[in-house]
Amino acid sequence: MVSPWKTASVPGLQLGLGCGFWICRSYRFLFRAGAMGPQVVTRQLLWLSRWQVVCAWGASVQHRTWAGVSRIPSLLSSGGALGASPLVRRSSSSTPPGAPEVVLTQQRYPVTRLPFSVVSAEDLAVFERILPGGVVTDPEVLEASNVDWLRTVRGCSKVLLRPRTSQEVAGILRYCHERNLAVNPQGGNTGMVGGSVPVFDEIILSTTLMNQVISFNSVSGTLVCQAGCVLEELSRYVEERGFVMPLDLGAKGSCHIGGNVATNAGGLRFLRYGSLHGTVLGLEVVLADGTVLDCLTSLRKDNTGYDLKQLFIGSEGTLGVITAVSIQCPPKPTAVNVAFLESPFYVLVETSGSRAGHDSEKLSDFLERALSSGLVTDGTVATDQTRLKALWALRERISEALSRDGYVYKYDLSLPTERLYDLVSDLRARLGSQAKHVVGYGHLGDGNLHLNVTSEAFSPSLLADLEPYVYEWTARQRGSVSAEHGLGFKKRGVLSYSKPPEALRLMQQLKALLDPKGILNPYKTLPAQA
Amino acid sequence: MVSPWKTASVPGLQLGLGCGFWICRSYRFLFRAGAMGPQVVTRQLLWLSRWQVVCAWGASVQHRTWAGVSRIPSLLSSGGALGASPLVRRSSSSTPPGAPEVVLTQQRYPVTRLPFSVVSAEDLAVFERILPGGVVTDPEVLEASNVDWLRTVRGCSKVLLRPRTSQEVAGILRYCHERNLAVNPQGGNTGMVGGSVPVFDEIILSTTLMNQVISFNSVSGTLVCQAGCVLEELSRYVEERGFVMPLDLGAKGSCHIGGNVATNAGGLRFLRYGSLHGTVLGLEVVLADGTVLDCLTSLRKDNTGYDLKQLFIGSEGTLGVITAVSIQCPPKPTAVNVAFLESPFYVLVETSGSRAGHDSEKLSDFLERALSSGLVTDGTVATDQTRLKALWALRERISEALSRDGYVYKYDLSLPTERLYDLVSDLRARLGSQAKHVVGYGHLGDGNLHLNVTSEAFSPSLLADLEPYVYEWTARQRGSVSAEHGLGFKKRGVLSYSKPPEALRLMQQLKALLDPKGILNPYKTLPAQA
Repeated sequence: MVSPWKTASVPGLQLGLGCGFWICRSYRFLFRAGAMGPQVVTRQLLWLSRWQVVCAWGASVQHRTWAGVSRIPSLLSSGGALGASPLVRRSSSSTPPGAPEVVLTQQRYPVTRLPFSVVSAEDLAVFERILPGGVVTDPEVLEASNVDWLRTVRGCSKVLLRPRTSQEVAGILRYCHERNLAVNPQGGNTGMVGGSVPVFDEIILSTTLMNQVISFNSVSGTLVCQAGCVLEELSRYVEERGFVMPLDLGAKGSCHIGGNVATNAGGLRFLRYGSLHGTVLGLEVVLADGTVLDCLTSLRKDNTGYDLKQLFIGSEGTLGVITAVSIQCPPKPTAVNVAFLESPFYVLVETSGSRAGHDSEKLSDFLERALSSGLVTDGTVATDQTRLKALWALRERISEALSRDGYVYKYDLSLPTERLYDLVSDLRARLGSQAKHVVGYGHLGDGNLHLNVTSEAFSPSLLADLEPYVYEWTARQRGSVSAEHGLGFKKRGVLSYSKPPEALRLMQQLKALLDPKGILNPYKTLPAQA
Repeated sequence: MVSPWKTASVPGLQLGLGCGFWICRSYRFLFRAGAMGPQVVTRQLLWLSRWQVVCAWGASVQHRTWAGVSRIPSLLSSGGALGASPLVRRSSSSTPPGAPEVVLTQQRYPVTRLPFSVVSAEDLAVFERILPGGVVTDPEVLEASNVDWLRTVRGCSKVLLRPRTSQEVAGILRYCHERNLAVNPQGGNTGMVGGSVPVFDEIILSTTLMNQVISFNSVSGTLVCQAGCVLEELSRYVEERGFVMPLDLGAKGSCHIGGNVATNAGGLRFLRYGSLHGTVLGLEVVLADGTVLDCLTSLRKDNTGYDLKQLFIGSEGTLGVITAVSIQCPPKPTAVNVAFLESPFYVLVETSGSRAGHDSEKLSDFLERALSSGLVTDGTVATDQTRLKALWALRERISEALSRDGYVYKYDLSLPTERLYDLVSDLRARLGSQAKHVVGYGHLGDGNLHLNVTSEAFSPSLLADLEPYVYEWTARQRGSVSAEHGLGFKKRGVLSYSKPPEALRLMQQLKALLDPKGILNPYKTLPAQA
């Protein structure tokens, strides 16, 4: 068997990241091709899910290594540098040196502009009255909002609006609804499926300036804030008060909480704290016609009628614009461990609890059993912040690293855990040298595979080999063709691989009910209607 | 100060329960009027919520008591008897001896029958063809399904249908939709707000015979079952396989999982495992026109379009009939403690974890701190099943006990925790001798007060003193007028105390979209339209 380290090493990826070596290593992070069969993966899942879900514990054990772990400390020895910039800020505001221009979406994809009005000088004057100083038409500034951070889709919007209040959002939408102007709500523009940038000339409605914390209850841990708050800043805010955000993801340095909710983001704490459908307590949403729907409650329980906020969680800005969020933050664990384990697959496990001594002992017991059984061959444990962040960065920066490898075909699949990696091996054989890399990693406990295929540039023939093959493969396993990234623009045509016609019809009816003119984030989420 | 034990004792409640004494005691369970101010309650909340949410731990400590605890062992000494029948089976199938006849809803409340068709002999013949042997017209059998278990509302349905499959449900609804026949979906008929029985002559569609487990994944803990499975039986099923249901409630011996989901039941594990909006993975629902909507996925993550199942969680059978449920079961904790603590309020706390020794030590530390601070004055800890169940029965049977005290005016409120008990004291002063009892208990960590007022019989003047006073009081605190019980028939008029007009309008639009003829559970959830 070829050393997995070598097969995973991709020198080209060092560009622009400053730490290419370990990012390369992380390429096959969580899963690594090898001699390991499906059964073993199932057992890993069992461990992970039980370990993290049942047991809220941790350990402040000292850094320890096992035989063969010498490779990992070398990786961690760059902790200082990592510690200085552990958080990824995704931005498409500047074109990386040498990166090719992004083709206009309307040129690459078969999509036809719907008969919305075109923004006029008079419209701009109205917007300027609604939000003085908040109307941007400078093409250089607009560039960053027209292109997604993966640099795969590009709109040609001529105007970006930056409201500060929900009343301003209401004013904008009321006017756009009347004038039949299409609107593209945009948070941190960190989406994976082209949902956050215009397809044509939709007005970009950015939540960037809606970044105020409204209230925080230090007894219950309920945070109420505007939709444009950056996740990382909210994390810092609540951590200073003894709580943590119930979600965490690689894009935390840029993504907005409103965008997180609109896409029903999963992320790294999903296994521990569950879905946003459970942790979001309330939302304020502005509907397509400018109606402000105030469901911004902070109550844990509220069964007065239909739970309307649920409609907007995961609707990707197509049913309404989320302007404020009330979210339940769990107490901050006082003892945290991150274990990075080596088997035929790399596994990253975080434990959280309140008693360091106990957690340490429990983790030791577990790791010794795992090592002596041969299931884990090597590994390291970290408890201090710098090392914790360095280990997590391995996982969090994969997506960014892949984006430097050329054009990335991204798939985000839910699959039965025992078959989670089969599709990766299968595609390597199927695609051969057509692909630069076929990479699989993901969330073992959630049954969520991030499948990434890279090539030098966009290639229609490679795409034809990938689709509908990947979707059909997933549908045969009764999986989901979008586990946590949503459908956006790029995946809207594949909804029917995971949902029956009756569900699709009801979704279209809901869209028609809430946005009869279809002005909110058009060309997204739902398939184009015949 | 009068001994709280004595003030809480209600001899009349011994009737029919076989263990009246301790049920009487439980009357003021979790909260007890006394010298304790709001601030202390807040601190208790803090403990409870942090304790249960952050820390999944437990202790198999031996039974211990503190000074003064002698009263509690006497309560527990009936453990054998309790162990024999610890589970409450709610049933309205037989009238308790001496209980007054329940007045027809249409006679007690101002409600007008909507122009639905009346069931004809021809209709019965069609139903008999759709579900041979599943059509019940015997008035004695129908009695149990026409009256709610609280014996406060009564319909006059002439037919009860008992399908076994979702296809049979689809056949029934397709026909009823065509014929404009109203349908009342019914699970275990354990609801608190008159949502589960007909108001007039609606056809009762019971899920009683839809009681099969479809699948259980012993790695992931995902249970898929028909809607009519009884919660307690599901609990037993998954516990034998190393998991627990994410919800538990007093009515578990009778309630159906479909009904639990339809009412978005909260219950006793809410603080630990969260809302059904987070733990339900998928639903199969039959819509008003007989369309089967198959969203019965078992995936942890699925972001393909709008999360339609959320619409039906908590919609009380007014948007569709839930026929099957996929639900995520957490692993069964291997160490469980229940602590019953005495302060000016009684507090019941359950801990769950995986290491008995650690949990025991942690619980001891906590209790010693609580005792030495004076916040807790007395208490007991149980770890064995019989005692655990005996302590929980104190809480679970309050509702049943209250129903024996006469007519019960029930309110289920979410309030800011620091004001959770104020309304109880306030009402005692306001109502004086008009009420037999004003009782407050609930879920401290969830901010959920169950307020119960009893009188010998239904009294319009007492009702006029209670309403809208209670709702206005709650609205001033920005609370919810239905925390976990739903609105059903009895509370549908008070929705606007907790939701703005824009939300109510959208709910009505959703109802019109999904059930344009309004045949599903009419007169429920939404206010009567002008």
